[in-house]
Amino acid sequence: LLALLSDPAPRLTHDHPAPVPKAGEALLRMRVAGVCDTDIQITRGYMAHRGVLGHEFVADVLESSDPTWLGKRVVGDINAGCGACDDCLTRDGHHCSRRTVLGIAGRDGALAERLTLPERNLVAVPDHVSDDAAVFAEPLAAAAHGLDDLGDDDGIVVLGDGKLGLLTVMCLRASSRPVTLIGHHDENLQIARGIGAEVVNARNTGLEAWRGVGAVVEATGRVEGLESALQLVRPRGTVVLKTTVANRFEIDLAPIVINELKIIGSRCGDVGHAIALLAAGKVDPTALIRSRFPLDDAEKAIERASRPATLKVLVDGLSA
Amino acid sequence: LLALLSDPAPRLTHDHPAPVPKAGEALLRMRVAGVCDTDIQITRGYMAHRGVLGHEFVADVLESSDPTWLGKRVVGDINAGCGACDDCLTRDGHHCSRRTVLGIAGRDGALAERLTLPERNLVAVPDHVSDDAAVFAEPLAAAAHGLDDLGDDDGIVVLGDGKLGLLTVMCLRASSRPVTLIGHHDENLQIARGIGAEVVNARNTGLEAWRGVGAVVEATGRVEGLESALQLVRPRGTVVLKTTVANRFEIDLAPIVINELKIIGSRCGDVGHAIALLAAGKVDPTALIRSRFPLDDAEKAIERASRPATLKVLVDGLSA
Repeated sequence: LLALLSDPAPRLTHDHPAPVPKAGEALLRMRVAGVCDTDIQITRGYMAHRGVLGHEFVADVLESSDPTWLGKRVVGDINAGCGACDDCLTRDGHHCSRRTVLGIAGRDGALAERLTLPERNLVAVPDHVSDDAAVFAEPLAAAAHGLDDLGDDDGIVVLGDGKLGLLTVMCLRASSRPVTLIGHHDENLQIARGIGAEVVNARNTGLEAWRGVGAVVEATGRVEGLESALQLVRPRGTVVLKTTVANRFEIDLAPIVINELKIIGSRCGDVGHAIALLAAGKVDPTALIRSRFPLDDAEKAIERASRPATLKVLVDGLSA
Repeated sequence: LLALLSDPAPRLTHDHPAPVPKAGEALLRMRVAGVCDTDIQITRGYMAHRGVLGHEFVADVLESSDPTWLGKRVVGDINAGCGACDDCLTRDGHHCSRRTVLGIAGRDGALAERLTLPERNLVAVPDHVSDDAAVFAEPLAAAAHGLDDLGDDDGIVVLGDGKLGLLTVMCLRASSRPVTLIGHHDENLQIARGIGAEVVNARNTGLEAWRGVGAVVEATGRVEGLESALQLVRPRGTVVLKTTVANRFEIDLAPIVINELKIIGSRCGDVGHAIALLAAGKVDPTALIRSRFPLDDAEKAIERASRPATLKVLVDGLSA
């Protein structure tokens, strides 16, 4: 089968073995997949993932021990927990120590003709939600995660106008919450303005005017983002931290205690919630699509997504 | 009047001008004061506080525009807000940008014969609560702050067996919560064991066995404490950060996002709540008292409190 491998550089292969679903797993045919910055980091060694790349997808169910899934169009939770530990039984298994993660850790990913996931991870996509919208389910879920706890007192600032920042703005606007997006790219900021966010290009102005905001969602993808967030948020405010910082970093942590801040780390979210947002027409992430490639040109999709300030690049599966 | 000044080194003076209460403020006679590590940091330049040291006290009300306070024995909230800003009107003024802080910022402190505080900051001490217990109201309030949000799932670890760590253990035990204290001083750990905490001397063992705990209260007084806390707490657990880290520090922040942690900074608490704990006999901080000096020997109290692993040093006011 056709698949995009992670190592030693993104490399297309035409003879990848067909994945074999284990008990409780479904075999899926990829319809559309998305390229995430994490995929690019993996090609540079992050997570030491060896195998097929990709964790954003919409697919058809080809095989399943549960016949009600057959033929359904689905997205899925990328964390496949053991199903037996405390985290799997009492929470969502996102932190199961024996989990595999689609295209990231121990499980071949979605940039391929076929993939497998546990049936319990699947979420059906309603007919009126397009493939190009449904493929955003995973990043949209990550963007939405942790936002419910934010009060509206004294405003909400989102830092970073990349994909994650823009999807976060969409989630906040979906519940009509006032939000200011601070970024660096006029073209990206324009998308947020179009759905009622205030936007600020930090290239043109300092951030002084936004000091004292009640909550900051940090989605810059840079370690410096947390430090900016700590400086902007008011005493007893909340910072939702979405950037995974892989290296040790020197930072002034004193504001956390002196200003009695709350910092909430957020990584993955609830894919079912994301599909509900899409089904209700409350968000339209397709505005983020910048380019698309067929699966047999998937190396080019990675190259395109690696360019600075690129939003979403999609990969189309082969026809059924 | 007799007072202990902060600069250039702790220096006793016999001719400090008597403090003059402003409108809405009471004049207090210090009965007993406590020495805090913050006082020692101030003598080394922290907060650039120039004036009388000390912010832990129990005192008698000598003068007040509200006659119901006259003669009362009181403790007080050390943060004196402007009373008019949003933080003062809707919260507790602890983060009022124009506030003074007793013995720390812009207001002479409690290591003196007399001090002043706004009447709205005062909390009466019930007769059956001793001076030696009441003088702990401020640090006990700081210890208690932020603990209500901690679940008991998967246990609570307190890091640091100094004054703040031990008072934190007392607050948790006051509501019968199971807690493990990890420290370095057998003598201090013994106090926690006496009130039903599990105790661990980290000099004798690694911390591996406590990985996966649901919540960590960080009270080590060291920047490394946060890093230890981030390593111990389970995914989606909570870290209450009580150490004020004054310098930039290199730290691996990745666990916050990857493990979706909640970090809560905590500085000052509710002095009224602390007095309620003392009045109900739920905590006995007097076990922390290690030494006491009269006010006219207050320089020695600072010297004594500066020695490693010292718990509480008290200063007795002059007789009325």
